[in-house]
Amino acid sequence: MKAFDSIDTVAFAEGNTAVRIIDQTLLPGEVKLIDISKREELYEAIKKLRVRGAPAIGVFAAMALSVLSRSIGEKDKDAFLLELQKEADYLNSSRPTAVNLSWALSEMMKEAKASETDDVSAIIEHLYEHAVKIRDDEEVIEKKIGELGASLIKDGYGVLTHCNAGRLACLKYGTATAPMYIAHENGVNFRAYCDETRPLLQGARLTALELSDAGIDTTLNCDNMSSSLMKSGKIDIIFVGADRIAANYDTANKIGTSLLAIAAKHYGIPFYVCAPTSTIDESIKTGADIPIEEREPSEVTEMWYEKRMAPENIKVYNPAFDVTDHSLITGVITENGIHYLKG
Amino acid sequence: MKAFDSIDTVAFAEGNTAVRIIDQTLLPGEVKLIDISKREELYEAIKKLRVRGAPAIGVFAAMALSVLSRSIGEKDKDAFLLELQKEADYLNSSRPTAVNLSWALSEMMKEAKASETDDVSAIIEHLYEHAVKIRDDEEVIEKKIGELGASLIKDGYGVLTHCNAGRLACLKYGTATAPMYIAHENGVNFRAYCDETRPLLQGARLTALELSDAGIDTTLNCDNMSSSLMKSGKIDIIFVGADRIAANYDTANKIGTSLLAIAAKHYGIPFYVCAPTSTIDESIKTGADIPIEEREPSEVTEMWYEKRMAPENIKVYNPAFDVTDHSLITGVITENGIHYLKG
Repeated sequence: MKAFDSIDTVAFAEGNTAVRIIDQTLLPGEVKLIDISKREELYEAIKKLRVRGAPAIGVFAAMALSVLSRSIGEKDKDAFLLELQKEADYLNSSRPTAVNLSWALSEMMKEAKASETDDVSAIIEHLYEHAVKIRDDEEVIEKKIGELGASLIKDGYGVLTHCNAGRLACLKYGTATAPMYIAHENGVNFRAYCDETRPLLQGARLTALELSDAGIDTTLNCDNMSSSLMKSGKIDIIFVGADRIAANYDTANKIGTSLLAIAAKHYGIPFYVCAPTSTIDESIKTGADIPIEEREPSEVTEMWYEKRMAPENIKVYNPAFDVTDHSLITGVITENGIHYLKG
Repeated sequence: MKAFDSIDTVAFAEGNTAVRIIDQTLLPGEVKLIDISKREELYEAIKKLRVRGAPAIGVFAAMALSVLSRSIGEKDKDAFLLELQKEADYLNSSRPTAVNLSWALSEMMKEAKASETDDVSAIIEHLYEHAVKIRDDEEVIEKKIGELGASLIKDGYGVLTHCNAGRLACLKYGTATAPMYIAHENGVNFRAYCDETRPLLQGARLTALELSDAGIDTTLNCDNMSSSLMKSGKIDIIFVGADRIAANYDTANKIGTSLLAIAAKHYGIPFYVCAPTSTIDESIKTGADIPIEEREPSEVTEMWYEKRMAPENIKVYNPAFDVTDHSLITGVITENGIHYLKG
């Protein structure tokens, strides 16, 4: 990786009193780092997708809670924990689908509550250390997912991915892109195809950017071209990320993932979900119970456009995610291994 | 139909020396009529999609050849026919996939050659009359397709369509939209869903515009949301148009159609192709032999955008059409009836 290799998707700023991110709403045109420390701005960064991607949101939320813990100002442990919980609940309400958000906040709260000391400043320091640990663990996890997935990519393959489950959604290797980065490091020759991913174009803006930046042979396509690509024999394997995986492996991911999975099954092309185990939500039995975020109509009708590209006041269907039935998934790749679901 | 009811998609201008069209590249922002008479501009209007949709291209090409016949200037019949053929070949080279283009030009050439008179001015007049006949026949055909298709739409249905096979692609009722217009005229309550249809957004710009303009309950969605829509039970039937249908009913239509058909089969939702018989190309056995137009990468990476939404110099896959296997099609609705292909 070249241009992005020296920049972290999510990090603590100097002094650890702010979280530093690449503002992803400005990519690919501008690479701008922003430091965020106010609660409303931390919330907004998730809500407005300045930071996005389930693993990155998890790490960001842990760091955000660490930052906010420093300004609570309570010296009494119980009062401190009460305020900390309020901040966690507030951050957790920014987006509903990615479970990594609530997982990371819950891990941080558990650490704070389990702390044996009554010294609030020691708890605050421990929260910082635990946010760093969540970050470091995530990087190790991504590499493991990449090594497992890379074993499935052969010379000459065409590899399709949807949305951005890349380093910009994570830390270093991404989840769905991790097999590609590792295969590329290992000298495997393959072609990457990126669904542009309407409405917010994360595939065009982010995945195409980071994969081509890494020197991988990358082609961009509209979401509706995947059947044509598969029929013409250009695609041998598909990797996608996940925002929440139910206990039965039904998987919520970026809108369009289930459509891709149906086409992959039709054409007999292996379809893998790549995600850390923290994305698996055992409390949810099937995908039917995963909350799906509906977003603003303007994302479909206005965003990016010089002139309005749809009639005024038209009704818009704009769910951010869909659920792919586990029967359509070949396997789920986590840091613990490849769990095969069919064939 | 309200705003568009008084405007023809394609017509002769006063004096019949130019073809008048709505410049569809400017919709939905601006309704601008343009008169075109020069050969290069007639060619460009098709190439640049100022006029688009297989039936409209057919009618436009017939009228364009009539207009061009007036300026050939040859008094000798054979010399005239030779020049006329050159003009027809030139127009025919503007886009490769829609068979209505070559069909209409071939019908016009047949009429000219079969003419018993040697009086070139009489042949020119006859060409004009035949272009009018092709236009009038098309309108009757659309209504028949609409009546047949409308019988399939029940109260409470959700009806999905892809791209624009509406009156803006045709003349009055469209092909895929004709069942919706007729059902609406008959007082049937249904909801229409429009795939926005990347990269050129004909669904968002044109179909959503004309259906909502007609008073139909219309919702816009991105192409990748169709699986989510079907899974949630919102879609009961799908109608699409066609650019060329092979002898075995494999159907070339706007890119994304085959992906939609695969999802429809997965969810058990009826999928109908609506087209005049002139779209059926008996000379082509299967869809594998239908030529598919590849268009400019800039349509995917730049068009409509205020800022570039993809990395510089990224490779782009941009076929304008794909082929839907006949096994995925419930039935083909032409002016002659519904031809059921499965079930």
